[in-house]
Amino acid sequence: MKGLGSDNHSGVHPELMQALQNCNSDHAPSYGTDNESFKAIQQFRRHFGEQTEVFFVFNGTAANVLSLGLLCERYQSVLCADTSHLHQDECGAPEFFAAKLLTLPSEAGKINLAQIKKSLVRKGDQHFAQVRAVSLTQPTELGTCYSLEELREICHWAHENNLFVHIDGARLSQAVVHLGCSFKEMTTDLGVDVVSFGGTKNGLMMGEAVLVLNKELAERSKEKLKYLRKQSAQLPSKTRFIAAQFHEYLRHDLYLRIARHSSAMAEQLYQQLLKIPAVTVTAPRQSNAVFVKIPKAFIKSLREKCFFYIWDETTYECRLMTSWDTTSQEISDFTSHLKELVSRVP
Amino acid sequence: MKGLGSDNHSGVHPELMQALQNCNSDHAPSYGTDNESFKAIQQFRRHFGEQTEVFFVFNGTAANVLSLGLLCERYQSVLCADTSHLHQDECGAPEFFAAKLLTLPSEAGKINLAQIKKSLVRKGDQHFAQVRAVSLTQPTELGTCYSLEELREICHWAHENNLFVHIDGARLSQAVVHLGCSFKEMTTDLGVDVVSFGGTKNGLMMGEAVLVLNKELAERSKEKLKYLRKQSAQLPSKTRFIAAQFHEYLRHDLYLRIARHSSAMAEQLYQQLLKIPAVTVTAPRQSNAVFVKIPKAFIKSLREKCFFYIWDETTYECRLMTSWDTTSQEISDFTSHLKELVSRVP
Amino acid sequence: MKGLGSDNHSGVHPELMQALQNCNSDHAPSYGTDNESFKAIQQFRRHFGEQTEVFFVFNGTAANVLSLGLLCERYQSVLCADTSHLHQDECGAPEFFAAKLLTLPSEAGKINLAQIKKSLVRKGDQHFAQVRAVSLTQPTELGTCYSLEELREICHWAHENNLFVHIDGARLSQAVVHLGCSFKEMTTDLGVDVVSFGGTKNGLMMGEAVLVLNKELAERSKEKLKYLRKQSAQLPSKTRFIAAQFHEYLRHDLYLRIARHSSAMAEQLYQQLLKIPAVTVTAPRQSNAVFVKIPKAFIKSLREKCFFYIWDETTYECRLMTSWDTTSQEISDFTSHLKELVSRVP
Amino acid sequence: MKGLGSDNHSGVHPELMQALQNCNSDHAPSYGTDNESFKAIQQFRRHFGEQTEVFFVFNGTAANVLSLGLLCERYQSVLCADTSHLHQDECGAPEFFAAKLLTLPSEAGKINLAQIKKSLVRKGDQHFAQVRAVSLTQPTELGTCYSLEELREICHWAHENNLFVHIDGARLSQAVVHLGCSFKEMTTDLGVDVVSFGGTKNGLMMGEAVLVLNKELAERSKEKLKYLRKQSAQLPSKTRFIAAQFHEYLRHDLYLRIARHSSAMAEQLYQQLLKIPAVTVTAPRQSNAVFVKIPKAFIKSLREKCFFYIWDETTYECRLMTSWDTTSQEISDFTSHLKELVSRVP
Repeated sequence: MKGLGSDNHSGVHPELMQALQNCNSDHAPSYGTDNESFKAIQQFRRHFGEQTEVFFVFNGTAANVLSLGLLCERYQSVLCADTSHLHQDECGAPEFFAAKLLTLPSEAGKINLAQIKKSLVRKGDQHFAQVRAVSLTQPTELGTCYSLEELREICHWAHENNLFVHIDGARLSQAVVHLGCSFKEMTTDLGVDVVSFGGTKNGLMMGEAVLVLNKELAERSKEKLKYLRKQSAQLPSKTRFIAAQFHEYLRHDLYLRIARHSSAMAEQLYQQLLKIPAVTVTAPRQSNAVFVKIPKAFIKSLREKCFFYIWDETTYECRLMTSWDTTSQEISDFTSHLKELVSRVP
Repeated sequence: MKGLGSDNHSGVHPELMQALQNCNSDHAPSYGTDNESFKAIQQFRRHFGEQTEVFFVFNGTAANVLSLGLLCERYQSVLCADTSHLHQDECGAPEFFAAKLLTLPSEAGKINLAQIKKSLVRKGDQHFAQVRAVSLTQPTELGTCYSLEELREICHWAHENNLFVHIDGARLSQAVVHLGCSFKEMTTDLGVDVVSFGGTKNGLMMGEAVLVLNKELAERSKEKLKYLRKQSAQLPSKTRFIAAQFHEYLRHDLYLRIARHSSAMAEQLYQQLLKIPAVTVTAPRQSNAVFVKIPKAFIKSLREKCFFYIWDETTYECRLMTSWDTTSQEISDFTSHLKELVSRVP
Repeated sequence: MKGLGSDNHSGVHPELMQALQNCNSDHAPSYGTDNESFKAIQQFRRHFGEQTEVFFVFNGTAANVLSLGLLCERYQSVLCADTSHLHQDECGAPEFFAAKLLTLPSEAGKINLAQIKKSLVRKGDQHFAQVRAVSLTQPTELGTCYSLEELREICHWAHENNLFVHIDGARLSQAVVHLGCSFKEMTTDLGVDVVSFGGTKNGLMMGEAVLVLNKELAERSKEKLKYLRKQSAQLPSKTRFIAAQFHEYLRHDLYLRIARHSSAMAEQLYQQLLKIPAVTVTAPRQSNAVFVKIPKAFIKSLREKCFFYIWDETTYECRLMTSWDTTSQEISDFTSHLKELVSRVP
Repeated sequence: MKGLGSDNHSGVHPELMQALQNCNSDHAPSYGTDNESFKAIQQFRRHFGEQTEVFFVFNGTAANVLSLGLLCERYQSVLCADTSHLHQDECGAPEFFAAKLLTLPSEAGKINLAQIKKSLVRKGDQHFAQVRAVSLTQPTELGTCYSLEELREICHWAHENNLFVHIDGARLSQAVVHLGCSFKEMTTDLGVDVVSFGGTKNGLMMGEAVLVLNKELAERSKEKLKYLRKQSAQLPSKTRFIAAQFHEYLRHDLYLRIARHSSAMAEQLYQQLLKIPAVTVTAPRQSNAVFVKIPKAFIKSLREKCFFYIWDETTYECRLMTSWDTTSQEISDFTSHLKELVSRVP
């Protein structure tokens, strides 16, 4: 049964499954020296710039903590939103693998430059874990996107203050669709230093990539991330099966088609929810998620028909998330059921 | 081109690839609560005993370090062979994730009880990282297997001395074939506490499992490994795609067919090499690997035809490793080429 | 020149220096098996209860991180005030040695039970670093004290929810003076599990102690903290020189005399500042610190005469801290100088 | 009662105790900005060269692990003797704070260049924790000293191979006496990069120093070790009390007088033991330790009179260690008692 729980509840996109089968013949060298890896890395460089260094890893937590591990010494710290996946959903992994997190209050999942600036007051004080990087999620955990201008400002100020900028891009393709720009225009061109590039939530079976965009860092990462990844238990041995998926995802417009489809499904859902007075949409729709407060009385019945997560147990704000395989019919069924529940209330 | 480099150079066994496709429909809950995980865990319990707790992870390093992390506090230590993968090939991961390693000299990859016993002299001394576990590789990195009697003795003594026993079983099925016993007879029944159960090197696309066999530990692992795995970036989100492979691997005799085939191919190679006086087989053949010293003059040409690793750069001991897809013809071609090289020498 | 910078700017109390000299004869076994350690531990047990286990360490950061290391697994978390020394002044040491910190908003340095309760919403969720302990500073970094009733409530609720309570007691004697109770009444009797007991800021040359008060934990700490302390580089070799100071500090009323004196000096300062309209005292005086907003124009001249720290660079809230050697005359001189500065303003 | 157990069983040298009292007046800034620290650092620079950066820490384990933490990334490794304090007596601290240790077989506590060279075979292989430093103990745990020529050769080769050289100098002054050279001639002039400089075992109450001798590293350490020390809980707050001891130790010839005296006492003991046929001296006497096999029958009675450690429980090799306060009479008493025990045997 399909639902609106998460984009990691859906399976593997058929074209990606086909790519897996296509590369399953013969022997290939392990640990990243295979031909599929070579080809996938070329695709990443086409999309993010030739200087890009690419490190395939197994999951999003790994991409994040290795990114931060590249940027920080263990006695430094990273600024992030209080709602960030880094802080809320990785069970202390960033602190274990990389560095201390300093959380900032967020609005609709986003932090702003004014707050970031305040965090530098104790520069040079040995008692304080010195801030070394800013980590932004794009799109955020609340489904919103930083604008190109917001990203540019943060990157500019960060570099002026000797900080790196990391993007947790578990669903980066969604932002590309929302902002109508290329990957490079949203990252490399603005000065983003490192990206956790998501695959699993975008139709892949599994696999993420650490993309080092900053040229100097990219050079350093060849040595540092090579060993850091292995010691962190994130060096895939049959690498071709992760690489082949990314290659297929990026070589034509599959990444766009997947993001556009799930985004369109979310938009359809969003528009229909706006018309139901009993519910309150709580954030703008800028990716494949819709956040909406639903009266408690309806939730049980709705979730039985179509699973989704309650985001905030105290306010009954819910997250409805579409995927590459969500259909227009499913959206209609969901909102119809909700309308029916509403109509039953005297 | 196929070679004798490693059993992770081969791809995915067709029946396992089919299992991946079969489970790729509809949505499934993520992070291990899916039906495929449930079914795979049942298979593991059938093979290792009902008390077994199963934790799927991405790769072998992860399975090893999470196993040790379950067994040890960070100020304790683990005994292992100087030739062990733990010590030689994990870039310090055991020390980072779990505990200090204390290496023991090995013979054909195996350590013995007499050496293990010597390592307990400083029990209770706060300056010394107290030994808490013995880690054995089965089959070893040199392709040999501990006998059931050897395992029984080590387990018995270890438990008498309050130590745990871990098995790095990246190729555990090979040992099952060699010893002619069941998984359970080789592990649970002898008192083995935790096993790193390998998939990747046995025909899977990727995936390993930590199996907690000791009943009391299994109970504890439900809480401890649950969080430790997540923090260690080893919780797969689309778990069904790892679980479905293990389910297929274990539900009938696929694990046996794969191990028997690669083992038979290695035996054919071994027998043919024994007949070539110019080369020296250096270890008994007890799994899918053959270790042999080959004159330096032949190595370049041989490797161009069929890749393999030089195990010891000083002695030209080489490791020839078969896989689920190695054919009898390939073995013949390899040994024919070697014989031809030998015959050319005046 | 003496100032109001910190109670670690002052030297060693003469009676403690004498104790150091007195124990400096002959040989003593190292690493905690000496007679001075035995005697000091007896004093701690007299003050905190017979079940207390005592671990001497070098400094306050160490006492805190070893306390938390005893209480938590590395994938768990600790609740503390956003103003806590743990979070603000230990350069990420808690995260490195022990566990993730979850900060709560504080008022005058204190957190309250209502906020603590909110932090348990994700109990059992493997993505979230599970809360295992609450850490309170007594007196707080803002010089305030939790009342016995506040401590009792927090301890009670914590234990009902399977959490431990840790007290960072770098200046614990100050709270004993303020609350008019014994150490035991403020800790063991209320259910506090572990205390970082401060020496350095109370007249010792150096030295702190981890006190494990919870009986079951105390039993466990004998093994666990013994090795954790050593691995954490906190096992003093010539232990007698730390122990002898604590013995002297605790055997009669020296701890009380020191705390009462510095507390009285702070009270004198506090009363005089209240009378100066140009400055604003910002927190109640409940230990040896006074927090006061001083107009920016006066600060440079004041600090040249008598050093103190600006606590908040944006509001010019300053911390004035007395010590065992602060004199009444020095307080008068300071306030006189301030009054003079005030009077010069037209 | 005095014994021959260890040079950390003795107390504080009277001149150092006097230095502690002398600096105990007035207030001093904390955390290393005091005048005593300034003066002590000048002394270290006089002895080791003007480029030297100095970081005071509490104990020897800390000096070692911070030294290695400066030199290595966590995925690298350090070569050391199998008998080294690093490996045998620090409960896994190097692995926790810094990097993996790779042990080499030693002779009389020393490793040689031939063995070191063999350890570089897997350079560039991501599966192997890359060697980044060699750590030598001078004098070794067996009381022997590397010659200047041996040190020069190792340093030269290490630097050619991009490795750092660290010296664990818990008793470095002893080597200065044995080799008849200056600190600088034994370290900086030969290319040693970092030294753990010992105080505690040389008459101080407590305190060690990390000395960064390599000019480029020294520059880098200003930033890196500053925070690493704090996060590692090794930043002393009342630093003047560690610094004042080192200042006194180094400003005239106190370090030499202490080392010469304990060395002379060890030599007297060594010469007398050579004359007793029932015992076998097992290593040359090159510092303040004598290693000797004593028949089991004599040990209990000897230790009751004068405590010492049994180094090897299987061979009854014992370590007899003198200190700054050992007297000639005590040595005579010990050997007389031993002779008497020998004479009683029929």
